[in-house]
Amino acid sequence: MNVDGVPYRTIWLASDGRAVEIIDQTRLPFDFVTLRLETVDQAAAAIRDMWVRGAPLIGATAAYGMALAMEADPSDAQLSSSAEKLMATRPTAVNLRWAIDEMLSLLTPLSGNARGAAAYARAAEICDEDVAICSAIGDHGMPLIHKAWEARGKPDRVNVLTHCNAGWLATVDWGTAIAPIYKAHDAGVPVHVWVDETRPRNQGASLTAWELGRHGVPHTVIVDNAGGHLMQHGLVDLCITGTDRTTASGDVCNKIGTYLKALAAHDNGVPFFVALPGPTIDWTIDDGVRDVPIEQRDTGEVTRMTGRTEKGDIVSVDITPDGSAAANYAFDVTPARLVSGLITERGVCAATKDALAGLYPEKTP
Amino acid sequence: MNVDGVPYRTIWLASDGRAVEIIDQTRLPFDFVTLRLETVDQAAAAIRDMWVRGAPLIGATAAYGMALAMEADPSDAQLSSSAEKLMATRPTAVNLRWAIDEMLSLLTPLSGNARGAAAYARAAEICDEDVAICSAIGDHGMPLIHKAWEARGKPDRVNVLTHCNAGWLATVDWGTAIAPIYKAHDAGVPVHVWVDETRPRNQGASLTAWELGRHGVPHTVIVDNAGGHLMQHGLVDLCITGTDRTTASGDVCNKIGTYLKALAAHDNGVPFFVALPGPTIDWTIDDGVRDVPIEQRDTGEVTRMTGRTEKGDIVSVDITPDGSAAANYAFDVTPARLVSGLITERGVCAATKDALAGLYPEKTP
Repeated sequence: MNVDGVPYRTIWLASDGRAVEIIDQTRLPFDFVTLRLETVDQAAAAIRDMWVRGAPLIGATAAYGMALAMEADPSDAQLSSSAEKLMATRPTAVNLRWAIDEMLSLLTPLSGNARGAAAYARAAEICDEDVAICSAIGDHGMPLIHKAWEARGKPDRVNVLTHCNAGWLATVDWGTAIAPIYKAHDAGVPVHVWVDETRPRNQGASLTAWELGRHGVPHTVIVDNAGGHLMQHGLVDLCITGTDRTTASGDVCNKIGTYLKALAAHDNGVPFFVALPGPTIDWTIDDGVRDVPIEQRDTGEVTRMTGRTEKGDIVSVDITPDGSAAANYAFDVTPARLVSGLITERGVCAATKDALAGLYPEKTP
Repeated sequence: MNVDGVPYRTIWLASDGRAVEIIDQTRLPFDFVTLRLETVDQAAAAIRDMWVRGAPLIGATAAYGMALAMEADPSDAQLSSSAEKLMATRPTAVNLRWAIDEMLSLLTPLSGNARGAAAYARAAEICDEDVAICSAIGDHGMPLIHKAWEARGKPDRVNVLTHCNAGWLATVDWGTAIAPIYKAHDAGVPVHVWVDETRPRNQGASLTAWELGRHGVPHTVIVDNAGGHLMQHGLVDLCITGTDRTTASGDVCNKIGTYLKALAAHDNGVPFFVALPGPTIDWTIDDGVRDVPIEQRDTGEVTRMTGRTEKGDIVSVDITPDGSAAANYAFDVTPARLVSGLITERGVCAATKDALAGLYPEKTP
């Protein structure tokens, strides 16, 4: 998407056709800094230190990391050590493993002098495939915003609420939940986004607000507590969030707090949509509340906040008293009964086992 | 309640019987500092600059402010100018107006030399009356916690979730929502409190966590997003919150985000109680969502956070990108249908017009 008028992806080949460039997302929302990755070690650092984040972007970075490795030394030893190195950066990331396996199965049978070019080509393809999936999610989701706007008689603005960051910064371009918003905005629909701050890591207030702002999409940051009040008063026309994992029956695991917004949407008759690429559906699980394990992360994310001082320094501050315990559950599960529809790259369907099976027949017996 | 073993109120007469002492709540949760108020101007500053906050404590501080004024100069001119000065500090505070009116109607008919002693006596009475109300709320609410603990077979802990700060720091002692928790804790019930951070002003993470910790009540700070997940997994036995204003039919206006927790409680069969002093019931309103105006506050509360750096400095940091708008709705309304019961100084009743009228017959025709 655009950053102040200039189109960007989150990862791209440098003009020399060899190095790879990324946005240092740890510097957002205060500084827009791009970094040049020249070695597999730098690609590994980019993933490990979260200069890049978001499942699709992590996978794309790992793929290019393998290309950088092959460009330097296309030996079998380098191939396997680089795969291990990249895999160790975030061992639980499903997309990371997938991208590395993809590269290994492509590169292993090739002779050394063919590996470099093949790796770059496949990494570029992985990026393009992700862009195509996200763009299709945007195309299928955009009419939902357009219809909501029309149904209200095309007022000055149509209000979408989102939680966390499922925008282009988490993918290679477009994003998932935000893709329909960009498509609507670019098509002239006057979409306005309520951006949930998304404590504890504040991905909404920092990343989603930043990317919407740079692309020129009107938006307002609110605390996570505010959405219910807005929905009670008709100030939200629809909700769209992303998801980390969707069960075969349509339960949605997403950033902690998503469930509370879905409850408020249901209580006020506001449609609640979830955008997802098909590969994030976990066909082995039905009951998300019972069966999706919820990660507990470092409590420092709850007890400390990072921001910019008046002088421009980025600092972290404690916000809880000494001696108070904290807990940090990273995700929650929204039961399918609260989800109005799932927006996938193949179309929009109900959050039910049958509807999902209809869209992805190859995944079900 | 206790601060590390020493009993405190939030406001008390100094040992010289003339000055008044308070806790500087702007320094919490990092520093416990008491301040000495010697003049009506200092009392006004204490209210205006939020060294004290919470409706009952603001009223008590204003009453003592009038006493300090009369002690210095018991003239009619001083009486009316002091009342005006105190009233101007937070013009929309109902308790502030009530306390000042109370003092004016007591003092105006008295001769100058009788005003000082009468003012100190009435201010002390206003404090004691608030303590009695809060203590009674605690006595009526404590059995709800005890029963929840018993119903689960007296496990190692019984979990109460609360939102914002309705503790002793907001009153003269005991608090409203937290009073039942203190009573249960002091009676040996192993109560553990989930403390909602309560963005944007973080009263939970700072004030509620601080006061529970100093009194020795086990507690865990969570982000406002987490409560739904906890309730889905049986980790909350009951919720208790305070309220700023309750309608005659039991709708509850309280800190933004309360409604979302009530929805989650309802969805998971978790009892949701609201603690309130009778005087905060607004008998003129039925439909809270429709008729309670919701204050919008400075958006800087959303876009900035205050905390303590590693070096111990208290600083504010920006947490949103330049150019992103923010909105700051301070309260929301929880419909009575989501409230399991109201805990008042006269007992616990259903959140219905009839039940409230039964407890407060003098308020209804």
